[in-house]
Amino acid sequence: MAEFDLIEQYFNFHYDFSSNSADKKGQPSVVKGIGDDCAIFNIPDKFQLVTSTDTLVSDVHFFSNLQPELIAYKALAVNVSDLAAMGAKPLAFTLSITLPEVSERWLSDFSKGLKSASEKFQIPLVGGDTTQGPLTINITAYGTVKQSRLLRRDKAQVGDDIWVTGYLGEAAAALDLSEKALGGRDELTEAENNLWQSLATPKPPVKFATKLAKFAECGLDISDGLMADLGHILKQSQCGANLDVEFLPLSDSLVEVVGIEQARQFALNGGDDYQLCFTAKSQHRNKILNLGERYKVNTTRVGKVTEGDLIVQLEGEAFQPTRASWQHFNQ
Amino acid sequence: MAEFDLIEQYFNFHYDFSSNSADKKGQPSVVKGIGDDCAIFNIPDKFQLVTSTDTLVSDVHFFSNLQPELIAYKALAVNVSDLAAMGAKPLAFTLSITLPEVSERWLSDFSKGLKSASEKFQIPLVGGDTTQGPLTINITAYGTVKQSRLLRRDKAQVGDDIWVTGYLGEAAAALDLSEKALGGRDELTEAENNLWQSLATPKPPVKFATKLAKFAECGLDISDGLMADLGHILKQSQCGANLDVEFLPLSDSLVEVVGIEQARQFALNGGDDYQLCFTAKSQHRNKILNLGERYKVNTTRVGKVTEGDLIVQLEGEAFQPTRASWQHFNQ
Repeated sequence: MAEFDLIEQYFNFHYDFSSNSADKKGQPSVVKGIGDDCAIFNIPDKFQLVTSTDTLVSDVHFFSNLQPELIAYKALAVNVSDLAAMGAKPLAFTLSITLPEVSERWLSDFSKGLKSASEKFQIPLVGGDTTQGPLTINITAYGTVKQSRLLRRDKAQVGDDIWVTGYLGEAAAALDLSEKALGGRDELTEAENNLWQSLATPKPPVKFATKLAKFAECGLDISDGLMADLGHILKQSQCGANLDVEFLPLSDSLVEVVGIEQARQFALNGGDDYQLCFTAKSQHRNKILNLGERYKVNTTRVGKVTEGDLIVQLEGEAFQPTRASWQHFNQ
Repeated sequence: MAEFDLIEQYFNFHYDFSSNSADKKGQPSVVKGIGDDCAIFNIPDKFQLVTSTDTLVSDVHFFSNLQPELIAYKALAVNVSDLAAMGAKPLAFTLSITLPEVSERWLSDFSKGLKSASEKFQIPLVGGDTTQGPLTINITAYGTVKQSRLLRRDKAQVGDDIWVTGYLGEAAAALDLSEKALGGRDELTEAENNLWQSLATPKPPVKFATKLAKFAECGLDISDGLMADLGHILKQSQCGANLDVEFLPLSDSLVEVVGIEQARQFALNGGDDYQLCFTAKSQHRNKILNLGERYKVNTTRVGKVTEGDLIVQLEGEAFQPTRASWQHFNQ
């Protein structure tokens, strides 16, 4: 199958996203998608374009025998999460895929998962590249944000509340189950299956994030683990924090499968959560809780920004994390 | 070395591109580069953002033992070529690099080549991703174009001249020399070395391209070979062409190394040229020649757009190309 046919058959989705329509005057829009050298966007003056790119490598970021639908879904979801981290609304994405060979069955499944995530997050595929080589998936996502509505990393201030969305640690716990999971989903308990779903199909709170900047100036998504990612905020904002372990949002499934002690460790340093960590003034507490309810996003205060270091505590006593955050090329 | 240190050491270039400065009122600008979840751009209303992405896989798109400086240079140059294909001015690029291991020597050389291309094409690095796995380089390039100044693929009209920039076929000829070249550049003749330079360091005519849309509405870059790429224009514009083989711009070096017959074949279907093919009304001939002189870009008329098929002829007689254009996954 030639490259052009492959793109036409598996990646030329047809969309009806009214929110991305060029007809909406004054809104960001996709002018041209697949079929030219480049994709083209109109970005009205009151918006900024934000862009993020992530590469997933077979057997590094996902198991090569994972269902192609799930590989595709997650590849897009983690990029959408980077947009949410800025408070940006998804506009479009491009896919660069490197394939060892053309398997129409694999491509058809992959395409299905990609289209499903594309529709879930209302983000159209507008271009990309197919090449031959070891299986690697690179996605670049484009979003827009109103000029004054950007979530940054350097705006935390002493006294701010520290919040997280969703439940943490489930994906890291699921990785421990992955061998069992790959042996067949039937063997999993319901709780284990819930963890597995969190790992396989992360759900970054995109719509919540686009509204959040009314109440929060500082935030990011939790991909390397809460402590590591909160660390980025603290470093760039030049402050410290008290993090209260007893407030970490832990799902019943997580506690059932790994116990409360391990659940807290996974929540602190597991990574792969693709939820938000953000800081906000205490007068916005109710507004944030209401916003979470409106978009069905769990919101939890887990600490406070301070002048000092990052201190992790359990009911006022020092708490010792057992697990380093994950980094590429860590030695 | 941790991912963050690696980025800081090898990819956090410091630029002074006045043309990309946020200080220039009304011009597109990079608001935020490396260090956040996303890069951020301001795109004033009279501009459109165009974006292009390309992946280079080790031992598919380049030899893994090629100097890292050359790998980096070309990876960026081919993406800049896609911007030129639209008549767009480079704004910024992101790099996603997958590395089997951290070799500081390799990274240092790669970084040098990347910075050199970045400065040559006046395009700053604003973000990206480093991952571990088989060597793969993905670049997404961002450019801007004034609303009415876009080079498209579907605007060729019957009677238009067909033009190309530069000299064609050199890169394809160099690929045939590549084993010899890899054995040591000293063994190459001067002419062979010229071909090798065209393959290793393509020079897309970026500034010429940004001015071209005054005189040409339709164009693209020649990456898969002139016939294949002209074919895209003809298909999307729903017309045909007469292509005159005797007018193809062939360098002395190419003819010296492979002879005139093979030179013509490489120029028609070699690929990897990263020059422009465009169509324009005949009244613009002198303006196009003058524009080429101004930017030191060779410009050559090679045929005419017609109502029929794509006909390749040598001094009025049918000419038979011997080589199919290259496509991924061609079977």
